[in-house]
Amino acid sequence: MKKGEIISGFSKWSKSAKIEWLINQLYLDKNTAQFLLGFELSDSSLQSIITELSENHISNYHLPFTVSPNFQVNGKMKVFPLVTEESSVVAALAKASGFWAKRGGFHYKILGTEKKGQVHFSWNGTPEKLRLFFPEIKKKLLDEASSVTKKMEERGGGITSVVLKYLPEILPNYYQIDVSFDTRDAMGANFINSCLEQFGKSLQEYFSENENLSETEKELEIIMCILSNYVPDSLVKVWVECPVDDLAEKGAEPGEFAEKFVRAVRIAQNDLSRAVTHNKGIFNGVDALAMATGNDFRAIEAAGHAFASRNGQYAGLSDARIENGKFVFSMEISLAVGVVGGVTALHPLAKLAMKVLESPSADELMGYLAVAGLASNWSAVKALVTTGIQKGHMKMHLSNILSSLNASEIQKESAISYFQNRPVSFSEVGKFLSENG
Amino acid sequence: MKKGEIISGFSKWSKSAKIEWLINQLYLDKNTAQFLLGFELSDSSLQSIITELSENHISNYHLPFTVSPNFQVNGKMKVFPLVTEESSVVAALAKASGFWAKRGGFHYKILGTEKKGQVHFSWNGTPEKLRLFFPEIKKKLLDEASSVTKKMEERGGGITSVVLKYLPEILPNYYQIDVSFDTRDAMGANFINSCLEQFGKSLQEYFSENENLSETEKELEIIMCILSNYVPDSLVKVWVECPVDDLAEKGAEPGEFAEKFVRAVRIAQNDLSRAVTHNKGIFNGVDALAMATGNDFRAIEAAGHAFASRNGQYAGLSDARIENGKFVFSMEISLAVGVVGGVTALHPLAKLAMKVLESPSADELMGYLAVAGLASNWSAVKALVTTGIQKGHMKMHLSNILSSLNASEIQKESAISYFQNRPVSFSEVGKFLSENG
Repeated sequence: MKKGEIISGFSKWSKSAKIEWLINQLYLDKNTAQFLLGFELSDSSLQSIITELSENHISNYHLPFTVSPNFQVNGKMKVFPLVTEESSVVAALAKASGFWAKRGGFHYKILGTEKKGQVHFSWNGTPEKLRLFFPEIKKKLLDEASSVTKKMEERGGGITSVVLKYLPEILPNYYQIDVSFDTRDAMGANFINSCLEQFGKSLQEYFSENENLSETEKELEIIMCILSNYVPDSLVKVWVECPVDDLAEKGAEPGEFAEKFVRAVRIAQNDLSRAVTHNKGIFNGVDALAMATGNDFRAIEAAGHAFASRNGQYAGLSDARIENGKFVFSMEISLAVGVVGGVTALHPLAKLAMKVLESPSADELMGYLAVAGLASNWSAVKALVTTGIQKGHMKMHLSNILSSLNASEIQKESAISYFQNRPVSFSEVGKFLSENG
Repeated sequence: MKKGEIISGFSKWSKSAKIEWLINQLYLDKNTAQFLLGFELSDSSLQSIITELSENHISNYHLPFTVSPNFQVNGKMKVFPLVTEESSVVAALAKASGFWAKRGGFHYKILGTEKKGQVHFSWNGTPEKLRLFFPEIKKKLLDEASSVTKKMEERGGGITSVVLKYLPEILPNYYQIDVSFDTRDAMGANFINSCLEQFGKSLQEYFSENENLSETEKELEIIMCILSNYVPDSLVKVWVECPVDDLAEKGAEPGEFAEKFVRAVRIAQNDLSRAVTHNKGIFNGVDALAMATGNDFRAIEAAGHAFASRNGQYAGLSDARIENGKFVFSMEISLAVGVVGGVTALHPLAKLAMKVLESPSADELMGYLAVAGLASNWSAVKALVTTGIQKGHMKMHLSNILSSLNASEIQKESAISYFQNRPVSFSEVGKFLSENG
């Protein structure tokens, strides 16, 4: 096969054929196949789980699987399993958990767990006529989706509301059926999409078979049926609080610190450039726990950032205030997660992560994710308003570089002392090592 | 140690001490240590890279490392390395790449690469006075940061602008020094933060040592110095286009399809619930390539979603239109990435991913990330307006469940046929297998 040719059926090739092709096309090292194999699991039944997670698997990408103890959440001590490639994240979470465990810990409260989806469609008749039919339509939709909803209803969940929306300002003749769901301990994506697609079929059938309609009116077009990752009513509040005086640590004046912290949070609530990075720090924590538990971090990010822009300007998600001598740091964050099914039930380390969390319900996991977010935010803002963020980052960065350059223990020690007040970069560290071999 | 006690110095414990503690605290299986070890690399120098990536490492979390060929980008054929746990993402990207390679491929254009950061501070004097001093201040800041900027300037980058902002509507006496950067092929987070922290020091010094100021005016308080992940001027445009008639595939009427696709994209641009999921699908692709190349997906998500809300309402990022018989599907997305330093330079498979991409510049990688996003969006919207999204999802979902339940090849075949038109769930598949052993 010539370089640059379109190839077909690639997904059906054997793994070794894929890798051989890759080596030839891209002039990779001849031992790439062996190199890639070195990242796979020796236990073939565990390996097949990773292999089957995605099409075109050729190896396993490793990320550090870590734990952070000392998370006191609603009075109970928890260990958080965390997966992230960013070196400062786990250190930041560990610091925050230890600090707050001595000051009452983290608290959370679930404010809602509603999830949504829409059937988007076009219809040529009047909205009045559609509204007239709607009670009958709704009954048919629910009846015909019952084979999909039955199991979920047995677990106490299901469809909680079905609302018709007419939105001609978006497209001519455009309607939505806006559906709310309770998916209990499941993320529920497959359940919601299956319900909505069944709704779409039933809806189209209702119109095509309705004898009271003209030929044009019988034609209803389903544009798409799909869940929404916007979940403003799947919401959790998380907070820490303590007397301002109890914030004291290593001689820093707690009143000044608290007041500066509050100002930093206020800036993030009002300045777009700051808000984005502030929230990025929150998701450093949320995503690390989400990944460890096999939850979809793209869904969590999309929900959270859209929620951050709900008032017309994208803003920082957390809030801090001082009230009658008490410091309160809190956040409301919209999150939809699951603890049954999906990657959580498949991935061997996600399963272990769930055991480390002592098999939480979806509500509990929602709480823990929010805690991880607030903890990460706490450490970031604290570092920013005190020592600055670079000190910790650079220490981790240096340690990464030293290990990747196979530095000896003696070299590591002398490098750490040398780079105390010097800018750290790959090339500078390399130079130092070659001069201090 | 009692269950629930706060522990200190955990990060300094040996890995085996951490794991032993975990087993005792959480009553985990006694062979958990061996189980965790099974996920580590046998090559100790490679393992130490993963270990050093984060504090409190106890094992490696595996994700499928995959490749997707056929990405024609600005006329050249590329293979995309992708890391994701979501089973439909690579399949979706592979379909999109093959489809568009036969229709001219993907195109991108870099519209800007400016990155930013701010020094946030309070000062008690008047803004007029500060503005008067500012040319002198600016000179001092740039001079004293030169040890940090020197290397970057040698590579053609550096600080490109320094602007004073007075923002009393956010906090009394609150100012920003808003700094723009060109970080060339680096993500530049460490560089930017180091510059800004040096700016903070110089700024404070300028005021404390200025003889023309009153004692109150000498007190300038640095609140924080930090880069911004909001990068609206680090922007790439990506598009595909072809005559509407060329969209034909397996007998579907191309005009109707194109028109329906355009309407689906219009809905995502105007309906919040749809916009969030639409963009989530874009980041499915972007993040898979970002992870494979060791880039920070939280930074990418924060930048992209905030950009999606820049006009006051969170909206879908992509656009589709039909013009003179031509179908054009495009997107502008703000992205800041690096190809030197960080995890990209450390992680063994991120390094291979960069080779698979033929060692792109940061601009090229920006283009590829945007292509992955548009490709993912294409496949999602295409599925939604034609067969629906569940068909493909369920097929992948079933295959995952079957492999995790160790189904035989014969069982797999009969399950695939059995679940053709039945809802797929863990329990249902388990039941089927136990009845068809």
